Amino acid sequence: MSRILPSWRPGRTREAIVAFLEAAGSLPVEDRVAFFDNDGTLWCERPRYVQLDFFLDTLRSRVTADPGLRDRPEFAALLDGDAGQVAALGLPRIALALASLFEGMSPEEFAAAARAFLRGAVSGRYRPASTLVYQPMLELIAQLRRLDFTVGIVTGGGADFLRAVSQELYGVPPELVVGSLIEYDVTTDARGATQLRRTARLLGAANEGPAKVSNIQAQLGRRPLLAAGNSAGDLEMLQWAASGPGPGLALLVDHDDAEREHAYESRAETVANAEPIAEVAARSGWTVVSMATDWESVFPSSPAG
Amino acid sequence: MSRILPSWRPGRTREAIVAFLEAAGSLPVEDRVAFFDNDGTLWCERPRYVQLDFFLDTLRSRVTADPGLRDRPEFAALLDGDAGQVAALGLPRIALALASLFEGMSPEEFAAAARAFLRGAVSGRYRPASTLVYQPMLELIAQLRRLDFTVGIVTGGGADFLRAVSQELYGVPPELVVGSLIEYDVTTDARGATQLRRTARLLGAANEGPAKVSNIQAQLGRRPLLAAGNSAGDLEMLQWAASGPGPGLALLVDHDDAEREHAYESRAETVANAEPIAEVAARSGWTVVSMATDWESVFPSSPAG
Repeated sequence: MSRILPSWRPGRTREAIVAFLEAAGSLPVEDRVAFFDNDGTLWCERPRYVQLDFFLDTLRSRVTADPGLRDRPEFAALLDGDAGQVAALGLPRIALALASLFEGMSPEEFAAAARAFLRGAVSGRYRPASTLVYQPMLELIAQLRRLDFTVGIVTGGGADFLRAVSQELYGVPPELVVGSLIEYDVTTDARGATQLRRTARLLGAANEGPAKVSNIQAQLGRRPLLAAGNSAGDLEMLQWAASGPGPGLALLVDHDDAEREHAYESRAETVANAEPIAEVAARSGWTVVSMATDWESVFPSSPAG
Repeated sequence: MSRILPSWRPGRTREAIVAFLEAAGSLPVEDRVAFFDNDGTLWCERPRYVQLDFFLDTLRSRVTADPGLRDRPEFAALLDGDAGQVAALGLPRIALALASLFEGMSPEEFAAAARAFLRGAVSGRYRPASTLVYQPMLELIAQLRRLDFTVGIVTGGGADFLRAVSQELYGVPPELVVGSLIEYDVTTDARGATQLRRTARLLGAANEGPAKVSNIQAQLGRRPLLAAGNSAGDLEMLQWAASGPGPGLALLVDHDDAEREHAYESRAETVANAEPIAEVAARSGWTVVSMATDWESVFPSSPAG
């Protein structure tokens, strides 16, 4: 029988995961729930969020057909690559402007566009999504599933974008993807045909920080035993998983591998003010995954996509 | 091999269901989604909604301990059985007043209370929930599951209440229950322990009418091929299932069996104004399930619970 988690090097991190898996096996199946952040935890988020690349790709082709779009300040800042102006406008405002590019689309049309991009068919500039996922995390998900875990994904980005590929990339069905939601208009024509159309309005708050906790609860109705994240936006979710009554595991991916991926640090607004999230993790008894030390390989060697 | 759907009598309704099941088998598995309304479609909603009985049961025991609760007009109307005053105050206001009885509870505490009630342990006045479900619908769900359908439940009532028993009654996990949602507060103590506490605030709108469509989309990210309902609050969802690109089935349960269950009619606010939902159904090409004619049995003969 082959060893489980082959891309995880022996050491304290791997031991903590294996110990958790053994402890969880004694719990009722309905309590076996694991949630993974996506950007920076399951797939690479640098140099830009994948969804931002999708939006930029769409924006560039729309501007070709309709040059007037350039006049919108959010689009001008993006097309000029003006990082200062992008920062001044703020990501929420930029994201909603970009969402307006898809206004009026049905859910199926949006999913088809996202899928085409993520499979690399639309943009030659970007690698297929299947080459951006972390191999050790795929192995952990596969092992959790063997143990009858319900495995979900949580993202600060759009739920619909990730749902378009969550099944093929991770085996996770759309109902187990918790993300920021765009409102739909429900329209019914004279013949009674009912359709959904995308708006450019966000439904509720963006799915970051404490919203990740309350949105997982609202959609899943269960608390995860295992939560994995990599940034300050995952802080509350990791604390939540770590403070359950039974065995819990809070996994924090530390991006410390400039050679094979990227080296960068997320800071959390804590009592100690802008503390690096890896220090919060060490203080809180979470398990820190050093990408450089704990992972034998980072990306799949022969991607399925 | 035993016949499928044994509690469904031969006839046009059963034939329409069997034809749909055969057609759906040729679609990709991810498109095989079926959604059932709960009150009046999967379980009996008369003489009162089961959740209202749970709330009343809780209210009565709280009033014993804290007679001052009687002074709240919503509670006085309920405790006096003053139907006129209940109607004057309106169900949304009554429901939020009742929700305040559970303020501060953790999700686990609320689920335990709901489960105790639904299993008949708290209140001798009520039958266990397992005796209130419709046997023919359990058989339809079982058959859909054999065909690899994702089967979900949608309710105008509280998602958390139904999620407490959806797995044991219907084999439906909490993430496939779409209902009205109470907001949770995310609290973190000085030691970093994160907990959720119920508020008395509704999250978004009550899950009725067009909200059933947009909330299924938001939570599931997919359109059902089959939708089943029984009231005007299910109109848009039934239209939505019926107007998809592939084979669809809109099932409307007609409560026309005063002998074995109850006989009553739901009216929809349509262009024809307060039209009986069964007439909308006939006009729209939906499949109307006559409880009196189409069902050989209504309730399970030897309930599991």
